[in-house]
Amino acid sequence: MRDYVEIGVGREARRTYSLSDISIVPSRRTRSSSDVDTTWHIDAYTFGIPVMSHPTDALASPDFVIEMDKQGGLGVINAEGLWGRQADLDAAVARVVEAVTSDDNIDGASAQAIALLQELHAAPIDEDLLADRIAEVRASGATVAVRVSPQRARELAPMVIKAGAEILVIQGTMISAEHVATGGEPLNLKEFIGSLEVPVIAGGVADYTTAMHLMRTGAAGIIVGGGTNTNEFALGIEVPMATAIADVSAARREYLDETGGRYVHIIADGEIETSGDVAKAIACGADAVMLGTTLAPAAEAAGKGSFWPAVAGHPRFPRGLVEAPQDFFFEGVEAPSLEKILHGPSTEAFGNQNIVGGLRRAMAKCGYTDLKSFQKVGLAVKR
Amino acid sequence: MRDYVEIGVGREARRTYSLSDISIVPSRRTRSSSDVDTTWHIDAYTFGIPVMSHPTDALASPDFVIEMDKQGGLGVINAEGLWGRQADLDAAVARVVEAVTSDDNIDGASAQAIALLQELHAAPIDEDLLADRIAEVRASGATVAVRVSPQRARELAPMVIKAGAEILVIQGTMISAEHVATGGEPLNLKEFIGSLEVPVIAGGVADYTTAMHLMRTGAAGIIVGGGTNTNEFALGIEVPMATAIADVSAARREYLDETGGRYVHIIADGEIETSGDVAKAIACGADAVMLGTTLAPAAEAAGKGSFWPAVAGHPRFPRGLVEAPQDFFFEGVEAPSLEKILHGPSTEAFGNQNIVGGLRRAMAKCGYTDLKSFQKVGLAVKR
Amino acid sequence: MRDYVEIGVGREARRTYSLSDISIVPSRRTRSSSDVDTTWHIDAYTFGIPVMSHPTDALASPDFVIEMDKQGGLGVINAEGLWGRQADLDAAVARVVEAVTSDDNIDGASAQAIALLQELHAAPIDEDLLADRIAEVRASGATVAVRVSPQRARELAPMVIKAGAEILVIQGTMISAEHVATGGEPLNLKEFIGSLEVPVIAGGVADYTTAMHLMRTGAAGIIVGGGTNTNEFALGIEVPMATAIADVSAARREYLDETGGRYVHIIADGEIETSGDVAKAIACGADAVMLGTTLAPAAEAAGKGSFWPAVAGHPRFPRGLVEAPQDFFFEGVEAPSLEKILHGPSTEAFGNQNIVGGLRRAMAKCGYTDLKSFQKVGLAVKR
Amino acid sequence: MRDYVEIGVGREARRTYSLSDISIVPSRRTRSSSDVDTTWHIDAYTFGIPVMSHPTDALASPDFVIEMDKQGGLGVINAEGLWGRQADLDAAVARVVEAVTSDDNIDGASAQAIALLQELHAAPIDEDLLADRIAEVRASGATVAVRVSPQRARELAPMVIKAGAEILVIQGTMISAEHVATGGEPLNLKEFIGSLEVPVIAGGVADYTTAMHLMRTGAAGIIVGGGTNTNEFALGIEVPMATAIADVSAARREYLDETGGRYVHIIADGEIETSGDVAKAIACGADAVMLGTTLAPAAEAAGKGSFWPAVAGHPRFPRGLVEAPQDFFFEGVEAPSLEKILHGPSTEAFGNQNIVGGLRRAMAKCGYTDLKSFQKVGLAVKR
Repeated sequence: MRDYVEIGVGREARRTYSLSDISIVPSRRTRSSSDVDTTWHIDAYTFGIPVMSHPTDALASPDFVIEMDKQGGLGVINAEGLWGRQADLDAAVARVVEAVTSDDNIDGASAQAIALLQELHAAPIDEDLLADRIAEVRASGATVAVRVSPQRARELAPMVIKAGAEILVIQGTMISAEHVATGGEPLNLKEFIGSLEVPVIAGGVADYTTAMHLMRTGAAGIIVGGGTNTNEFALGIEVPMATAIADVSAARREYLDETGGRYVHIIADGEIETSGDVAKAIACGADAVMLGTTLAPAAEAAGKGSFWPAVAGHPRFPRGLVEAPQDFFFEGVEAPSLEKILHGPSTEAFGNQNIVGGLRRAMAKCGYTDLKSFQKVGLAVKR
Repeated sequence: MRDYVEIGVGREARRTYSLSDISIVPSRRTRSSSDVDTTWHIDAYTFGIPVMSHPTDALASPDFVIEMDKQGGLGVINAEGLWGRQADLDAAVARVVEAVTSDDNIDGASAQAIALLQELHAAPIDEDLLADRIAEVRASGATVAVRVSPQRARELAPMVIKAGAEILVIQGTMISAEHVATGGEPLNLKEFIGSLEVPVIAGGVADYTTAMHLMRTGAAGIIVGGGTNTNEFALGIEVPMATAIADVSAARREYLDETGGRYVHIIADGEIETSGDVAKAIACGADAVMLGTTLAPAAEAAGKGSFWPAVAGHPRFPRGLVEAPQDFFFEGVEAPSLEKILHGPSTEAFGNQNIVGGLRRAMAKCGYTDLKSFQKVGLAVKR
Repeated sequence: MRDYVEIGVGREARRTYSLSDISIVPSRRTRSSSDVDTTWHIDAYTFGIPVMSHPTDALASPDFVIEMDKQGGLGVINAEGLWGRQADLDAAVARVVEAVTSDDNIDGASAQAIALLQELHAAPIDEDLLADRIAEVRASGATVAVRVSPQRARELAPMVIKAGAEILVIQGTMISAEHVATGGEPLNLKEFIGSLEVPVIAGGVADYTTAMHLMRTGAAGIIVGGGTNTNEFALGIEVPMATAIADVSAARREYLDETGGRYVHIIADGEIETSGDVAKAIACGADAVMLGTTLAPAAEAAGKGSFWPAVAGHPRFPRGLVEAPQDFFFEGVEAPSLEKILHGPSTEAFGNQNIVGGLRRAMAKCGYTDLKSFQKVGLAVKR
Repeated sequence: MRDYVEIGVGREARRTYSLSDISIVPSRRTRSSSDVDTTWHIDAYTFGIPVMSHPTDALASPDFVIEMDKQGGLGVINAEGLWGRQADLDAAVARVVEAVTSDDNIDGASAQAIALLQELHAAPIDEDLLADRIAEVRASGATVAVRVSPQRARELAPMVIKAGAEILVIQGTMISAEHVATGGEPLNLKEFIGSLEVPVIAGGVADYTTAMHLMRTGAAGIIVGGGTNTNEFALGIEVPMATAIADVSAARREYLDETGGRYVHIIADGEIETSGDVAKAIACGADAVMLGTTLAPAAEAAGKGSFWPAVAGHPRFPRGLVEAPQDFFFEGVEAPSLEKILHGPSTEAFGNQNIVGGLRRAMAKCGYTDLKSFQKVGLAVKR
């Protein structure tokens, strides 16, 4: 069934596909985009749009998380980022932005900015500070999701939940249901998740088997993707998102059958920049997407247009671009609001704004009115 | 029969091809290009060359439409563009050109120009103004084709036909024979086309099924293509033209058999820039092509070298590049006439001028003397 | 047997390969490059290296043709170029070079230079002038090959042969054994070649069938290729050289069998720039190559580093880049001699110099010592 | 079994893959990277990391070789480079660096630098000088590996071994077990290696058959790769590393069976720049890698950031880029230490630093703790 090639004598490799390799094929009666329903239900929560934000301090200021909620999505706070480490959060983020914008490295990857991120992340987590900030967002009425790493989940999760986190995101670049380590106590996710009172979204994963194991831990949602697009260079590991989403969707079907009806949500986190990418991710089987760079230009984003993934601050082996702002801020052009990026109207032709409007139009032109059925739309690969 | 790949467990995608993926393979006795006949007959009309212009205000000034007729092709007026919205049409187009040429956005997509297009299109359509302008072109003796959207076809078609439109073009980025909407009255194209006295060319479509349904509406011609090359980014939908044209040609054969002889014409609108692209589109099965950017440099074109597709002025979700003029106007070089672009002689080596001469030569070198038989020429894909 | 894909419903295209898609695979005992024999025998002529020059005035000054002979190859004069049209040949070529070097068109295709080429080619051919110049080269003792087009072969061939042409090259971008035209008398190549006393090399062709027909005309050699790399844009016709050479080689085998031993030589003219490309062309089945841009930097070349193919001067539909010189002449660096380009030694690492040395090394590393057996070396395609 | 395509009638080519075509697929329980063992045992030697340096004077100063040993790897001295030819080695290398950095050739290949390399290599090898320098490194306690060419192996090997070389590297761009030459005495590697008292690592090879023959010579290790990335342009020969490593690994298995247990090591030398590439090479079956450009920025490297492969100094047919330093030295930024490049910590996100840390992480995320078992990790190809 799978499509394998022999790359050398006796050595096979599976053929995989990225979102940019595929496109959506309309073949039914067209519909009105105003008839499209983009509601996303996960556990007891309902969101108007199937959009989470990547857990990075480049996005998540308190204002940003609150505004995400207002716009129908879910903003995610990184418990191991700067919120709990830097008393003056704005100033800390501003220093990173300053570092990246003053670096003329043509590759776009700022060693200075990464070094500064590492320095800022070397500060210990002040749990009270972090709890206060989470509670502040919670107090606004916004749904609060907080991300912890598998390594520190046991330590930090109780605190962030107590502070107000309604959804726990356990996210590393690549995780498994049972991490093996010599000495030390590994995190058994099944036991851990079973002990929590809030729904857990866990990942990232990239393959059927790991996803199946992760589903069996009781997670409400699975993140598909590697968290950064430099993993290929750094680790030789790449997650071609079209294949990964489709594989994990197959695991979801299998697990649904195995459990007699437990539906685990799939959140795609990778290769998604435009409204067309969002549509493709859902067409491959995702229930929702996690957006990063797409949301960075928003006026409410902490980084003022700069972006870096959570793993860019890793102390010894950072990954991911630290990107300078697009020209919005250089050119005196006003930054678009998060509302404009998500819901338009747009003056931009490449699907970087009015993301949800683009998704609605894609679904409508293909004749679908809800996200779940759109997962079955026809696909094409180029050549 | 179709070539499918499994992109992930249990999820298939069809392999599709763009015009740039293919090339024409000569394998018969060569002929003289002077023996080639490029005549295109559709309904009661005969054109010397199988070329329509894309319905954009960047091309269609009254002079341009009249000159298209003189050169053997068919110029198309956009009834929902600026002709009926702006009393001073030249000044309105000039403002857009000014906006795009003064924008130094390196991506070539001008947010300023798009915002201005949106503003100019926000003005209501003055039906008298539009009718006068259509009538003016008609009075010249030129064949007049006018484009309306499916949404406003019922409202505008009677007026534009009365004003002189001999061919009605019903064109949206992606349309279907029956649009479904909750509330409101959808356009049933079959009934609508049956009620008109002029032939209709409708599209765009991208697949066999939708094309078959559209043929059954009674349309004289079907437009293949999505109207803009940014649909992939905005919607995740892309129309690989070689596959789309071949698929719709197959639907034409089927429909021809089903009706015992009704031949529906296929007009390709996408990926076509050079004379080589025109030849490829016909080789894939098209009867004619709709040219956009190719015609933009013409001295007679309204945009003086600038180009934008019709959908670039969409109020909430614009698509398509607004392109600044090539260097003709910057460098003090004289703009080529439409005649030179279509019929040469040319001093340009990449098939951007003498489009029809290139088509003739391609056919002659492959041993074909008419468009219909050239649809069977041998094809190759690269790798 | 052939590898076909279905690009759309019911429409197939053959999968084809360029030289850049393939590479040579060594798998035998290595040899010394000094043991390699690059001799090329065609008809009664023996050349030390399997190299012809493309018939363009950008290369063929009298000095260049004489030097090609000294270096073991075969320089080709274009009878329909400037030799017979311009009394002051050097000045005419210098004007073209001046036109292209003073044009700052970033695409590298100079409309000014093409317009000038068209103007210079509009002058009539002075047969005495052409004959004198051919005779001058012949008087040096160099083997003289002259190219005529199929259209003017009957008219010009007797004169150029009388003037001293020992090998006649009948070359158009795409030719066939029998050209069909309404009215006028087509050139029947079989009768025509039978009437000549000198061996004929004819082309270009791109496919098995046309090549087979051309072999049956009695030609001593067949040119594979389309003469320029802009045919794809201009005509939609592209000649993927690896496939074309292999196909024509198969026709050679078939024709050899059919005739009980008549061996027709294959000369590859396209996609060949470096010594690696020469090796690949021969590995695909070519007996020799026709070099163009590769030889342009030679001090002896007429164009002083500029290059254009013969078809760039076409009066109505020019094709091919007119290329400005590489930096040799701008930077005050001395132009390499033709000897250096063909035989080295080189200070250049990308196979642009010491072309024959590179071919020798490629053959030696693969364990082959003559060109004919090297046509069987193992090949790989990338991916 | 092999995957062949027909590139033309009756002519086949094998489909091959580069490291950039593939990626590693995690599908097991994750592990801690601190549990990963990167030890490499070859013959009687044990290295902490599976890394050799490419035998170029751009890397190997005495300090560099000593530091490589300290960091767990193996530095390789080129016996036919400048160590034995230039009394003032530092000055000679500095001249090359000066030549390449002062050359504004945009292609990055410096003809001036190559000409200077050729001049510097034209000096005869002073065996005493070379022996003294080798002995100096040996005296430091570092393991010394010295490279000779197959052509001069018989002449130079005894001397370099006497001077202290513990491992002999016999390396040319493409070698075979038995080189055939008319006249002169070819090097029979089997006899030659049998006569030596030190282990030999030999290559480069690219295919199963040549590798098998080379294994039968008694070599302890086989180098896979062509030594430079310009071979494709110069020779038409390319070594797609994923396929080549896998093929040679298959030969290793076969030879292991044939000999009842003799394990020959595979060292990959080509396409490897980042930590991800290292992981991929091992995943394809390599036991170790030979790094070139990756190590060039090290403060200890002779070339101060410049790089050229050994074959760039070839007297008649040089190959390989002579690369100017990255911006470390231009921008006043401190050059990273070899330790930082190999072991981090890094402030760089693309796997150019902390190479071994990246390898460890890749293995750990895939659930492997030793190099040998990691050769079986799952692979994917893109599309």
